[in-house]
Formats: sequence, structure tokens, C-alpha cells
Amino acid sequence: MSAASAPPDILISEVGPRDGLQSISTILPLELKKAWVAAEAAAGVREIEVGSFVPARVLPQMADTGELVRYAKTLPGLTVAVLVPNRKGAEAAIEAGADKLTLPVSVSETHSLRNVRRTHAQMIDEAAAISSLIRTLPKANRPQFEGGLSTAFGCTLEGPIPDAVITDLAERLMTAGCDEVGLSDTSGYANPAQVKRLVRLVRGVVGKEALSGLHLHNTRGLGLANALAGLEEDITTLDASLGGLGGCPFAPGASGNIVTEDLVFMLEAMGLSTGVDIPKLLEVRRQLAAWLPTEAVYGFTVDAGLPLGFEPLEAAA
Amino acid sequence: MSAASAPPDILISEVGPRDGLQSISTILPLELKKAWVAAEAAAGVREIEVGSFVPARVLPQMADTGELVRYAKTLPGLTVAVLVPNRKGAEAAIEAGADKLTLPVSVSETHSLRNVRRTHAQMIDEAAAISSLIRTLPKANRPQFEGGLSTAFGCTLEGPIPDAVITDLAERLMTAGCDEVGLSDTSGYANPAQVKRLVRLVRGVVGKEALSGLHLHNTRGLGLANALAGLEEDITTLDASLGGLGGCPFAPGASGNIVTEDLVFMLEAMGLSTGVDIPKLLEVRRQLAAWLPTEAVYGFTVDAGLPLGFEPLEAAA
Repeated sequence: MSAASAPPDILISEVGPRDGLQSISTILPLELKKAWVAAEAAAGVREIEVGSFVPARVLPQMADTGELVRYAKTLPGLTVAVLVPNRKGAEAAIEAGADKLTLPVSVSETHSLRNVRRTHAQMIDEAAAISSLIRTLPKANRPQFEGGLSTAFGCTLEGPIPDAVITDLAERLMTAGCDEVGLSDTSGYANPAQVKRLVRLVRGVVGKEALSGLHLHNTRGLGLANALAGLEEDITTLDASLGGLGGCPFAPGASGNIVTEDLVFMLEAMGLSTGVDIPKLLEVRRQLAAWLPTEAVYGFTVDAGLPLGFEPLEAAA
Repeated sequence: MSAASAPPDILISEVGPRDGLQSISTILPLELKKAWVAAEAAAGVREIEVGSFVPARVLPQMADTGELVRYAKTLPGLTVAVLVPNRKGAEAAIEAGADKLTLPVSVSETHSLRNVRRTHAQMIDEAAAISSLIRTLPKANRPQFEGGLSTAFGCTLEGPIPDAVITDLAERLMTAGCDEVGLSDTSGYANPAQVKRLVRLVRGVVGKEALSGLHLHNTRGLGLANALAGLEEDITTLDASLGGLGGCPFAPGASGNIVTEDLVFMLEAMGLSTGVDIPKLLEVRRQLAAWLPTEAVYGFTVDAGLPLGFEPLEAAA
């Protein structure tokens, strides 16, 4: 096995084509979405959440997710992830051939009702239905199924969420058939101490292997500090968005995923491999900004450049 | 002792009036500098680096530092810090009544020559001369004297600096009579693993008590992650600049101190007291932005606001 094909220490899961594009008014044409996904995969990113299977009348930006999944599946070595709000979305995702499905479940029931008009009980039913659907497939064809615990670090509508609500939902999602759960800072409320505490808390219920990923926002500038806190708890998958594009359109004031390129720089500088070629990634970032001239993009490394004498851990294959 | 007068867990040392104002072309009038310092002290900030004692022809923005020190000394409970490049600057600082003097010494000798036209040996001589000067004062009147190890995390001119150069300079500064040393990420090159390693390395030479503070920049977005790494090594003083104003005018491409208001939010959210009243601090930040309409300011919390249900640890006195 060559160095370039060895699994990286940290899996960067790019969510820009989903969380980024669903949050802005510009509708990026399918051809440019394909070019973005292909370029980021070529830069060494191994997992990309390419879209969500929601009705086009709700999020017209995501109307071509099926086609994008089919295209992304032709890219070698890429895990093609999607977001599904319910069983119907999961059906479409499976038909398109997605490798990973995430069902977002807001631990804030108020947010859940606002976001997808479902109670917790209804969302658990969806999870069970999706799990049943997946189990009808031959084992080799089954996608990974994650329950995403949204607003886990607090909600713009409810404020802090009691521990018991979070652990209860995590447990019920696993019982309903999820392979794993993830913690999402939908509102950008998280702080590093809370990240550590909540990762431990939820793992205490679902086990360490069932919680490997964090979805963090940079709403108050703490995104990378929160990522570092996650790393110290042995988190191995971090969601991020190129240029920090995105946030949640249903959580007022919440914007800004952590910036993929700044995160990759931090990890590689710390000696944690990501498999990503930073100069290539920065080129994709510049291209994306050019495709979206009217949208706000974030990040510092693209302007500051890499430190003099900086040596990347490995180049992408 | 009331809660408000108890020492905070973490000392925020505001460096905006020095590192911020020396980096921009706008010259803030003395009356507005006074208003800034007074307002931040009133918000609970207990140490402010109000300026530097450098020749006015080099940094005209700092020409009124003596007057500002005298004014700041009238504010109750405030530690008035200044930067001095040499013995002559230290004389002026002592005459004005500064509580703390920092002599910045670039561990990159190339940067030192570029910045203050001095070799390492010449800077150690300055440190010894300043220390001798301080020792002529009655004990009760002696300011704290810090040697600031600039470019400690790498230099835009030299790249990475060998460990031995850093530890050697730290040791020589202490031998020359500094009370403590600090580590400065002048170039914005630091990463969290390096912060931990370097804090341990330098403390191994000078002792834990002689290294309590970090001066971090946010040039590549890692500023608060680096601060978190410092906290985990029991760092208790963090420099920051309101609105992230500043950087180093002599290090090309290096800009952006860590943002005071985002840092304070992170610390207080983590349960670490700072003594700072965040809403009051955000008001000062808005005022500062209004005083400097043509200058770039940074930070997220001022726009995002505090999380719903956020409870500050304590209000300022």
C-alpha cells in the first residue's frame, strides 16, 4: 500500500455542496457542482456530502442531487454522502447509489418541527423505516446510515438542550438501526469544553465506535478550537465546507461551516494526515469563489498562504 | 473579597491600542485612545498594552504613548503594559509609570535585524541594561519586565526556527534579568501541537512560572485553537486585540491578532472566568469600529450575538 492510498489520520468530510449550496440563493448549475466535486476529490478529499434528497420546492438548489450522486460515484475512492430528511429521501438516495446517508434529527424538538415538521417520535420512526429499507439490500450494497444529532450544542429557538434529551435520542437512533450518530453544532453555539463533555456523554450511551464525527460551525469564531477539542477526544471525522460556505437556513443568525482549507492546514501542520493536497485544495477554493461571485466565502489560509518552510505530510495520489 | 474583584482564571491582555494601532495607517487621536482604554477597563479588562515607546518618526501612531500611560494609570485596577524596543524606551516607560514592560526579541535574527536593527547579542545587552535600570528603582516601584520571544513559531523571512535558538534566547533573557518570557506567534504560523510543544520546551529551561503568556495571531484562522492548546498547558495570560485589529507591520502577509471578544466568549463559555462583561466589551468593539471606519476589523461574536440562554460567569465590577 503506498503512502497516498493509506487511510488518513483524519477523514475530512466536505459538506459544501450540500450545507453550503442549500444555504445560499444562487443555484449552482449541475456542471459546476460536478466540477467542484471532481476537483476536490482530485485534491485528495475522500468523502463529500454532495446534496440532500428533499423536495425541489423546498430547496430548489438540491433538485439535481440524484444526478450528482451518480456522477460522483464514478470518481475513484470517493465516499458519496447525502442528507435525507425521511424514508422517501432515503429511497431516492439508495436508488442513486449513495454510499452514506445522514438523517438529521434536531435534539431541539422545536427546531425539528420548524425544520422538517416532525416530532422526535416521528423522526425515530423515519430512522427505523430507513434502516428497514437498507436491510432489504444485499449486504455489499448497503449504505452507511448515520443519525445526525442537530442543534446538539444548543438551539437558537430553545437554548441549551438537556443532556437526557440528547442521550435519549442518540440511544433511540441506534436502536432504530443507525450505524452511528454524529453531533452537529447547527447553531454555532459550541465551545471546546462542551464538545469534549458531549462526545464523552454520548459515547457513554452508544459506545465509542458509534460516534466518530462532528459537524461544527464557525458562527462565533470557535470552529477550529472546537475541532481541536474533538480531536483530543479521538474524533476521526470532521465535516467542513470549502470557503466556509453555508450554515443552516432554518436557524436564524447561524451561518458559517468550519473552513475546509483552514482545517486541513491545521491538521497537517499538527502532523495529522488528511490525504489532502493543500495547494490543490486552495485552487478549488479560488475556483469556487469565482463561481459564486455574489456569495460570502470565508477562511484565512487562502489569503495568507502557507508558512515559509511548511512541509505537507503527503501529496494526494 | 467580592466575586468581581477575585482574580479571574485567565488574564486577558488587550494589545489593540499597541499592536492594533501600530499596524494601521489611521492615527487615532489621544482622546479616543483614552476613551478606548477607559471603556475596556470598565468592561472588566485588567491589563492593556497601551502603546510602545519607539521614536515617533518610526511609528507616529505611538507618539503619545507617554501621555496615554499617565492617563491609564488613573484607571483603578488596571495593569498598564507597554512595549519597549530598547533601554531608551524603557526609561520613558518607567518615567511615565508603566506597570509592565515587554522587550520583543525576535528568535529569528533576520527578523530582529529587519525589525529593530539589532542582533540577538545586542538585544540581550538591551535586556540587561533595562533590568539594571529597573533595579535602581525602589522595589515597590519596579515594573514587571517581560522578554517577548517574537517569531517563536516561525518567521516569514527564515521559516522554522530551531528549538535550540529559542531555548537559548529564553535562557539568556532570564539571565539578563527578565522576570518572565512570553511566546509570540508574530507570523501567524503556529498550530496547536506546536503551541503545546513549545510551551513545554521553553518551560523546561526557564521554569513554569516564567512562562505564563502567549501572544497569538489569527492569520490562518487557528488563533483560538492555538489559545485552547495554550490553556491545556496551563497558560494563564492571553494577548488579544479588540476586533482583531493589528498584526505586525514588518512581517509581510502577517495580520490579525486573535479577537478579544471571541476569545472572551470562548473562555467564559468554557467556564473559565475573565472578569470581562461581554455585552459591555461588544459595545466597545462597535465603538472602535466606528472610530476606524476605513480599517478592517474581524470577529464573529459581535455579529452572531451570544447564544440563547448563555449565562456569563460574573459581571464586571
